[in-house]
Amino acid sequence: MRLRLLAALACITFTAFQQTANAQTAPAKTLDDKAAFNAIFDEVMNNGEAYDNLEVLCKDIGHRLAGSPQADMAVRWSYDMIKKYGFDSVWLQPVTVPHWVRGEQEYGEIMNVGQVNMLALGGSVATPIEGIIDNVIEVRDFKHLEELGTAGIKGKIVFFNYPFPQNVVNSFEGYGDAGPYRWHGANDASKYGAIAVVIRSVGSSHDDFAHTGSTHFDDGVKKIPCAALSNIDADMLHNALQKDPSTKFKMIMSCAMLDSVQSYNVIAEIKGSTFPKEVIVVGGHLDSWDVGEGAHDDGAGCMQSVEVLRAIQAAGLKPKRTIRCILFMNEENGNMGGKTYGKYASATKDEKHIAALESDAGGFSPRGFSLDSAMLARPEMEQLKELMLKYGVYSFEEGHGGTDIGPMEKAGTHLIGLVPDSQRYMDLHHTNNDVFEQVNKRELHMGASVMAMMCWWISEHGVK
Amino acid sequence: MRLRLLAALACITFTAFQQTANAQTAPAKTLDDKAAFNAIFDEVMNNGEAYDNLEVLCKDIGHRLAGSPQADMAVRWSYDMIKKYGFDSVWLQPVTVPHWVRGEQEYGEIMNVGQVNMLALGGSVATPIEGIIDNVIEVRDFKHLEELGTAGIKGKIVFFNYPFPQNVVNSFEGYGDAGPYRWHGANDASKYGAIAVVIRSVGSSHDDFAHTGSTHFDDGVKKIPCAALSNIDADMLHNALQKDPSTKFKMIMSCAMLDSVQSYNVIAEIKGSTFPKEVIVVGGHLDSWDVGEGAHDDGAGCMQSVEVLRAIQAAGLKPKRTIRCILFMNEENGNMGGKTYGKYASATKDEKHIAALESDAGGFSPRGFSLDSAMLARPEMEQLKELMLKYGVYSFEEGHGGTDIGPMEKAGTHLIGLVPDSQRYMDLHHTNNDVFEQVNKRELHMGASVMAMMCWWISEHGVK
Repeated sequence: MRLRLLAALACITFTAFQQTANAQTAPAKTLDDKAAFNAIFDEVMNNGEAYDNLEVLCKDIGHRLAGSPQADMAVRWSYDMIKKYGFDSVWLQPVTVPHWVRGEQEYGEIMNVGQVNMLALGGSVATPIEGIIDNVIEVRDFKHLEELGTAGIKGKIVFFNYPFPQNVVNSFEGYGDAGPYRWHGANDASKYGAIAVVIRSVGSSHDDFAHTGSTHFDDGVKKIPCAALSNIDADMLHNALQKDPSTKFKMIMSCAMLDSVQSYNVIAEIKGSTFPKEVIVVGGHLDSWDVGEGAHDDGAGCMQSVEVLRAIQAAGLKPKRTIRCILFMNEENGNMGGKTYGKYASATKDEKHIAALESDAGGFSPRGFSLDSAMLARPEMEQLKELMLKYGVYSFEEGHGGTDIGPMEKAGTHLIGLVPDSQRYMDLHHTNNDVFEQVNKRELHMGASVMAMMCWWISEHGVK
Repeated sequence: MRLRLLAALACITFTAFQQTANAQTAPAKTLDDKAAFNAIFDEVMNNGEAYDNLEVLCKDIGHRLAGSPQADMAVRWSYDMIKKYGFDSVWLQPVTVPHWVRGEQEYGEIMNVGQVNMLALGGSVATPIEGIIDNVIEVRDFKHLEELGTAGIKGKIVFFNYPFPQNVVNSFEGYGDAGPYRWHGANDASKYGAIAVVIRSVGSSHDDFAHTGSTHFDDGVKKIPCAALSNIDADMLHNALQKDPSTKFKMIMSCAMLDSVQSYNVIAEIKGSTFPKEVIVVGGHLDSWDVGEGAHDDGAGCMQSVEVLRAIQAAGLKPKRTIRCILFMNEENGNMGGKTYGKYASATKDEKHIAALESDAGGFSPRGFSLDSAMLARPEMEQLKELMLKYGVYSFEEGHGGTDIGPMEKAGTHLIGLVPDSQRYMDLHHTNNDVFEQVNKRELHMGASVMAMMCWWISEHGVK
């Protein structure tokens, strides 16, 4: 596979351009929604290619943090792969992205106990070359941090030991609850003079995989090294501190923020037959964290989005409105792809972005869509709900569309998020365990099929 | 673990008896349905033990076909494990079960091509000791078999190459469609003089795992050896026959039906506080096929059923009606556990079995329940549906309860089946890949929690 891939990539002129391909022109079918949904479902489930494409992305390229050589290869490979389908257009949109690197050194140890599974948080600064060895203060939550104050925190390594709540139906609720310790725990602890921060991983599984992800510091706050411990190793540190509060922790990290890099959003579309200037975006993000293979987050969403175009074309359906697939770059640590496209969508006079659908919650069995209140209030939605129920899609609720498509809100675009079953997502999220083997073909393709139905339905009915 | 397990098992007097344990007597809580559901959910998701119990069943005992030493050990271990929870009663119900064994020899080969992944179907007879080597006739479906008739079939090995349909929303639809080739393909081919049968595995995954399962022969039909090939190897045989129709297939199998064996259903209950003679059964089947670990089929359903009692007790809830957990024996090849208990339920004058809930579709995220029309027609169901929707349970449809509880229909019992997400089940069903690692803790416990809610709700409201 590698040889064939590299040969194909060599042929791409790697600049921003738009190209009109010789699309295979099958006679367009006229079908009612129900028949179109059935045609899409049969096409995706019988002949879907998202799973095989995802295998190439995961196994031949692997993880692909924005700015990395792998992200570059993912752009080139995606462009080439999509181009072979012969959609109406395929192009690259330039995006300038930050370039954080983990570096060669990453080591954590509970002194006199043992080494831990640890991952620097994205955006962390490095430790000194010789590392940090110091006392640890275990902190239950932000309130506890405040109570401890400078007197309790200054000069120490803060260990945020906030557990992921299990009694949540949707595991994203748990992420919402525990996620802030990753996002601004280091920032808050730094204000009290902490020298470094380790957190219990924000993940629902009790295993040896540490969960990385972005952290940030407010302007003027001193940046300190920060990392996540696997849940098992967070237990180990807690137990060590219970036995001996003077237990020291050692961490060595060589992560760094390098100069920004030129990258791209990968874009393809099927032009609308009746209202070509009305655009429906469907997408996911092509970048991933720099661990595992970014299979569920978000290779799955990208390959599903390509499948939306492939299945509609292969089923002989011709949408009235333009359906545009976007593989966004840099969702994980900057969202520059989303921001760049959002600016274009707001600025352009040539087309109107009527709706955008994102899949960035894993390639699991679909259960619903989150939408804005205006979309939910449309009387036609009742008919859509009825049609979708057959495919196990029953939940239509007001909520988040997706990080990449978020900036398009300013363009007046209706934002829609695919809502898959969430039980396994936070077990794998941002870990070395988010690999292709964790993706089930039928689940991935079920998701792609209902995404294609949603895009088709909007292309038929518009959003007025 | 093994040592501790064996020591504990040695203490059990292994006959049918009923014992009233010294249940931990916490003061009963009075809660409305919503509060009770929340209490159950929190208990199962925060402290659930189904997952850890399943690990012991899968890893310390493993697969456990009825009549096997492992099935015997599963009965003893389950009894002991349940007894430790201190429910009101725990007992064993004797069941006489068939004892089919795979035997030492099992070998399949496409001559001049290679060995295949093959599993004898349960109930198959052996080949001669030296095996069978003969020509193969590939048959598309039952209609094709009929067209070929005796002239085309006699003296040959029939290869049923009927594919599992992928364009089904619920993978059990695919099982319903392709399953008959496993269940009576050999029987039908034998009538035309086939000397043996191999089938494409009845499974949704395209991999090297063969799917076994029961086959049967009508009275008077000559029993012939029959086996399943993995889907990849079915492709290989198809391709070999396309290239050379005179390709021969070799199979050696030493399977046999031995004398029947004494086994047991494992039963435990929490006695109803107000209507103790009204019984709600919750269960799964303790036996499995003799491959893999019977993790999803049906260790999951058994450990969920135990968890129903554990969580209700641990949450301090005291049901008005009796909730009885049954781990049935021999669902896979005879259903003698279900039949035996069904006879008891019909015959007893001491108690009325008002409802029975079975989990035998895998330990995946719950989506709904299948019920009989009378249960569905109850006006109170609307309130239950509303309460359950919060937990992702939205589908309440008329349908199958479960094979084990099926015979209780004669006792006038309302039969209910848990309906989990089905996408992965038929990938693993009856294969060496149905192992503990395929089970997700949150998914398993979500299922257990809604089972407990359903049992609690019936215990509160009855079925009148």
